[in-house]
Amino acid sequence: MATPTIKIDFESNTPVYKQIVDQIISAIARGELKEGDKLPSIRKMASMLQINMLTVNKAYNYLVEQGFVTLYKKQYVVKLSNKEEKWKKELERAIDLAIASNAGKDQILDKVKELLNMRRGLGS
Amino acid sequence: MATPTIKIDFESNTPVYKQIVDQIISAIARGELKEGDKLPSIRKMASMLQINMLTVNKAYNYLVEQGFVTLYKKQYVVKLSNKEEKWKKELERAIDLAIASNAGKDQILDKVKELLNMRRGLGS
Repeated sequence: MATPTIKIDFESNTPVYKQIVDQIISAIARGELKEGDKLPSIRKMASMLQINMLTVNKAYNYLVEQGFVTLYKKQYVVKLSNKEEKWKKELERAIDLAIASNAGKDQILDKVKELLNMRRGLGS
Repeated sequence: MATPTIKIDFESNTPVYKQIVDQIISAIARGELKEGDKLPSIRKMASMLQINMLTVNKAYNYLVEQGFVTLYKKQYVVKLSNKEEKWKKELERAIDLAIASNAGKDQILDKVKELLNMRRGLGS
């Protein structure tokens, strides 16, 4: 079983289940979680984070719906799938946010390159 | 007054107020809305989109909170401000989503360049 590092910020505006989702996706992106890795059980994750099991359940189900995790023999397992439409749309949203925040194009491109260099290359 | 093109998809999982927010940010990024432009009044926008005024109110307030719009003499006015922390965080989330979706680094970088070329350069 793989135990990703997850930190919940209870002061944040982002709902707790979404924080778990984002951090698991980030752990996959960083290579901390690999295809086939089993996530901690809902009970165990809830106990580690000291939160309600329903919240972890909501996060895991969201990851299943979005195709990052699959339920196999009652265990949640990381899976990779190129949901091209989804990530391109999210990237467009983020770039629009950056430009509307008055960020320069070079500044955005540099940040993207920096982020890509920090991640393990899965493709290319 | 500037009237951005907004299309609501009532079948979408994204809440209607968030669709308005995203499309106004996108209109700012594309240069369709410029600094100082007045948004349609809440009543007018609600009538154009055939939705509840409370929903438009929620969208406009969110844009004010996030610093893209300011309330001036009872009118909602577009403003630009580089909220660097916010856009960098959103960009990181989008890139993590792309990598976790098994997208290659070159594929991501090409998409970013394509998106940036489609937007008017504010900075660069």
